[in-house]
Amino acid sequence: MRLSRYFLPILRETPKEAEIVSHRLMLRAGMIRQQSAGLYSWLPLGLRVLNKINRIVREEQDRSGAVEILMPTIQSADLWRESGRYDAYGKEMLRIKDRHDREMLYGPTNEEMVTDIFRSYVRSYKDLPLNLYHIQWKFRDEVRPRFGLMRGREFLMKDAYSFDLDQAGARHSYNKMFVAYLRTFARLGLKAIPMRADTGPIGGDLSHEFIILASTGESEVFCHKDYLDFDIPAADTDFDSREGLQEIIDRWTSLYAATSEMHDAAAFAAVAPEQQVSARGIEVGHIFYFGTKYSEPMGATVTGPDGVDRPVHMGSYGIGPSRLAAAIIEASHDENGIVWPEAVAPFDVAVLNLKAGDSGTDAACERIYHELTAAGRDVLYDDRDDRPGAKFATADLIGIPWQLVVGPKSLAEGKVELKRRAGGERETLSIEDAIQRLGS
Amino acid sequence: MRLSRYFLPILRETPKEAEIVSHRLMLRAGMIRQQSAGLYSWLPLGLRVLNKINRIVREEQDRSGAVEILMPTIQSADLWRESGRYDAYGKEMLRIKDRHDREMLYGPTNEEMVTDIFRSYVRSYKDLPLNLYHIQWKFRDEVRPRFGLMRGREFLMKDAYSFDLDQAGARHSYNKMFVAYLRTFARLGLKAIPMRADTGPIGGDLSHEFIILASTGESEVFCHKDYLDFDIPAADTDFDSREGLQEIIDRWTSLYAATSEMHDAAAFAAVAPEQQVSARGIEVGHIFYFGTKYSEPMGATVTGPDGVDRPVHMGSYGIGPSRLAAAIIEASHDENGIVWPEAVAPFDVAVLNLKAGDSGTDAACERIYHELTAAGRDVLYDDRDDRPGAKFATADLIGIPWQLVVGPKSLAEGKVELKRRAGGERETLSIEDAIQRLGS
Repeated sequence: MRLSRYFLPILRETPKEAEIVSHRLMLRAGMIRQQSAGLYSWLPLGLRVLNKINRIVREEQDRSGAVEILMPTIQSADLWRESGRYDAYGKEMLRIKDRHDREMLYGPTNEEMVTDIFRSYVRSYKDLPLNLYHIQWKFRDEVRPRFGLMRGREFLMKDAYSFDLDQAGARHSYNKMFVAYLRTFARLGLKAIPMRADTGPIGGDLSHEFIILASTGESEVFCHKDYLDFDIPAADTDFDSREGLQEIIDRWTSLYAATSEMHDAAAFAAVAPEQQVSARGIEVGHIFYFGTKYSEPMGATVTGPDGVDRPVHMGSYGIGPSRLAAAIIEASHDENGIVWPEAVAPFDVAVLNLKAGDSGTDAACERIYHELTAAGRDVLYDDRDDRPGAKFATADLIGIPWQLVVGPKSLAEGKVELKRRAGGERETLSIEDAIQRLGS
Repeated sequence: MRLSRYFLPILRETPKEAEIVSHRLMLRAGMIRQQSAGLYSWLPLGLRVLNKINRIVREEQDRSGAVEILMPTIQSADLWRESGRYDAYGKEMLRIKDRHDREMLYGPTNEEMVTDIFRSYVRSYKDLPLNLYHIQWKFRDEVRPRFGLMRGREFLMKDAYSFDLDQAGARHSYNKMFVAYLRTFARLGLKAIPMRADTGPIGGDLSHEFIILASTGESEVFCHKDYLDFDIPAADTDFDSREGLQEIIDRWTSLYAATSEMHDAAAFAAVAPEQQVSARGIEVGHIFYFGTKYSEPMGATVTGPDGVDRPVHMGSYGIGPSRLAAAIIEASHDENGIVWPEAVAPFDVAVLNLKAGDSGTDAACERIYHELTAAGRDVLYDDRDDRPGAKFATADLIGIPWQLVVGPKSLAEGKVELKRRAGGERETLSIEDAIQRLGS
């Protein structure tokens, strides 16, 4: 992408309304724009990050055997009356009346609707296990939206719903999502620790939150230090093996880890002091097993091998990709701006033309731009007529992992400069070597 | 994808509520499910088609130079008061009050919001031309939703918005979208004819609808027969050439073509009788130039080269991917079900195992499934224990372009049968040849 033809509205000044670093940096880097309280537009740079996060989330859901669907944002209130949640859910639910005065709502979550889909089609245990997920906009009418995308009102959520014949099957489905989440967060460049959690309004009796440690985190968390170095389950993990998955989960739940709500000071004191981590944390995922809480009142039953009908055992599993975009910045930035992990960076390489209009510099940049693009890299080519200092500052602010600096001085010697955003290391090398290095 | 692990709820009976063939077939093929009047869930097969349509739409928008963003579904009423449309828009607008009693709405279109984004950042003619698009859910509270996705309430729309300094620039932007639309519909397997159209509530004085001919179309249209054989602009069309694009548009608007609203019987009578086409049509895209209708009241101005501020000239350009999924079926089906064009088919190949459980048949199917998948094809492997007749019927109903039939009898001679869904041609060939043919 040529910057001269892109839409990257960088802000020079730090927006006053932004209280946390991710919100400040997303506004300054032209990633998002607030439209109303808690409602954001995704500008081109932000949308690229969101799409890269979605792709990783989707790949890991698919790998675990979940099947993607897409439910509408607007739901009928009647469905929520069946589960009893229409009256129970508070003011966070955005309630709507249509032109015929029918009561509708903007879905804050989809347990009811997916249970309705399930009961419409599935009758037999032979069609189980089943896990349906979607990535769709949700709305929660927060009384005081704040912290940018961390607590917005309209937000993107991946929510998966598993259906099993019995509790043992449901536990296996839960474990699949547990492993999928470990892999998802690791691929996003995050160290996420699963912590036993409260189930809240979703209900049920088994739940884990996945928490990343960040000094700006919203709540206090406590865990064993060893979690930070645990191995992530491999891509070829056998999701069909109940024993294999249970072993992974046993290991990942063997040491102390708790949010402040579930914290047990006495148990934590039993951890050796040098292995105690007490820090701020950000929730990036939440998984629940809640048995027949929805299937019973809503009549979602299947016939078992014994010919007897029984309500299915369900779980639900959430990740917020829009929130993750902010959480990744909270975990990865410095005083000059964002430092994107390569997997979610909006572009892989920024090519900085230090003398746009100079024929030699232009030609070298064009060559690099075309060859790296042809090699499948996402390249942002800063071809604007602007000061070098402004180009360096923009490239640092928006956090592209590799910057390739092309100026007439080093070009006279056939060289360009490569800078790594994360560590700041610089290296001078030939154009061929630079293309070779970044294109492969 | 193994069908035994997929979610493909085929309906045996034709749903009574479906009045048109696309609606019937989408329900029967397990592509969609109605949740409430005009609100649909996309089941896995349907979502695959929708995503393939979106990808083609996106590629052609990007090719023309448009830049993707993503605006929220919920908007503030205040923005629509600025343009004067809040009161003017009828009951189709879903109006909402949030917990603080602020007036909001579910966006039926985004002229106001994108103009607000533009005026927040862009000040100079040097940043033009600019075309921002997004693919986002919209809501129009139809008094009587019907025809499935053809006239739903919540629907997906790609809407693009162009910004130019003057009318000549805006005309160029309009022409870019015109060409992008011709290419988009052709890639989707559709013959779409641009017809001069009424501008309706969007406003402005230049507008074209893109119409496909289908006997089940919603309105009557009239055009010159030659349009059906016009060449589609090539992928390497130079979108920066004003003259080049204008030539294409001149050609594509040189012959008679009009919707019933714009029909001029006298002008149509001047077309030679054997070249007159009068048929039913389905609108699949609509483009508008409306000048300063929104930029003036909303204060979206830029400074020109002469230092004078003036309101930008705008256009907007819509395609409905969810509606397109239905329109493609209206244009491409037979008595056995859907006949997907290859570009949007949910899977490229269906592998039908006629004797699941038989070790030889299973092994041959597994080999084909793995090799075609490794070659990058989307393969649906029907590995269920079911009657051959049911498998044939399902494959025909869901319209996969190629069916590879693997049974013990032909396997004994090292052969499989390949059937093309569109023409019904059958061919017996070796496994190697089948993999070679379908994998390349």
